[in-house]
Amino acid sequence: MMNYARSTTLEAVEGLTIEELDFLVHDEANTIGMLLGHMAAVEKIYQIITFERRNPTEEEEEALGAGLELGEKGKAAFKGFPLEYYLGELQDVRENTFQKFHTLTDEWLFEQTNWWWNEQGNNYFKWFHVLEDELNHRGQIRMIKKIYSKEKSGLVK
Amino acid sequence: MMNYARSTTLEAVEGLTIEELDFLVHDEANTIGMLLGHMAAVEKIYQIITFERRNPTEEEEEALGAGLELGEKGKAAFKGFPLEYYLGELQDVRENTFQKFHTLTDEWLFEQTNWWWNEQGNNYFKWFHVLEDELNHRGQIRMIKKIYSKEKSGLVK
Repeated sequence: MMNYARSTTLEAVEGLTIEELDFLVHDEANTIGMLLGHMAAVEKIYQIITFERRNPTEEEEEALGAGLELGEKGKAAFKGFPLEYYLGELQDVRENTFQKFHTLTDEWLFEQTNWWWNEQGNNYFKWFHVLEDELNHRGQIRMIKKIYSKEKSGLVK
Repeated sequence: MMNYARSTTLEAVEGLTIEELDFLVHDEANTIGMLLGHMAAVEKIYQIITFERRNPTEEEEEALGAGLELGEKGKAAFKGFPLEYYLGELQDVRENTFQKFHTLTDEWLFEQTNWWWNEQGNNYFKWFHVLEDELNHRGQIRMIKKIYSKEKSGLVK
């Protein structure tokens, strides 16, 4: 499921220029570059949560803040980079994830901790969340691309 | 995973007015109403494909065409309805899905047919696709709501 989600993300961003990656639908919107930076940051946080079985430290949250929170911080951090920058980052993080997965048992998937909504959450759900968040943003990337092309063609209502 | 995806969709559309459901970001965009109609139509098609183990007939494709293809057909079909209309439809379809799931074995999940990319696809993947498509559009719904609120506040760039 993670590979499938990623393949659709890669397909959605294939060939995007820096202008497209930095395009803002409105002044509070996320650019495609910001969403790609977000995907990598979310995955890093879940590596800490599920592989190291702990919450991120303040330093880690600070280091990943632009990607996690986006907003003005994210807009400043993810700007002016070519597509290869984001793809390299996504690939590096994913390789670390899969290397670690190979060392873990299926039982690990079902290890639970306190999680959302005062319920228990297992590692399977936590990694499902990583990919479902990516799918959510892939949908937005497709939409941002369409709005960009409409604006460029001067046909926006 | 299907229940989680649906709960996030319901949260995203909670309290939306007909004006919000029919709001068009641009002239070729999908409204939130169209996306909700699409979710129900996709689920119906996958009921046919996976429960009846066959492709939809021309009549079925015709009946579900507005929801599946969207575009002008979808824009005409999903317009002017209150939120309850879409939620009722989504719930009816989902109840049928879950009733059928209760009669099926785990082996059924792994039954394969020829599927995308010249590969085999099992029923687990096909239903994963139903929910990943919903997550994709949930991301878009969140974005459309934000653009709507920006336009209403007169602050769109």
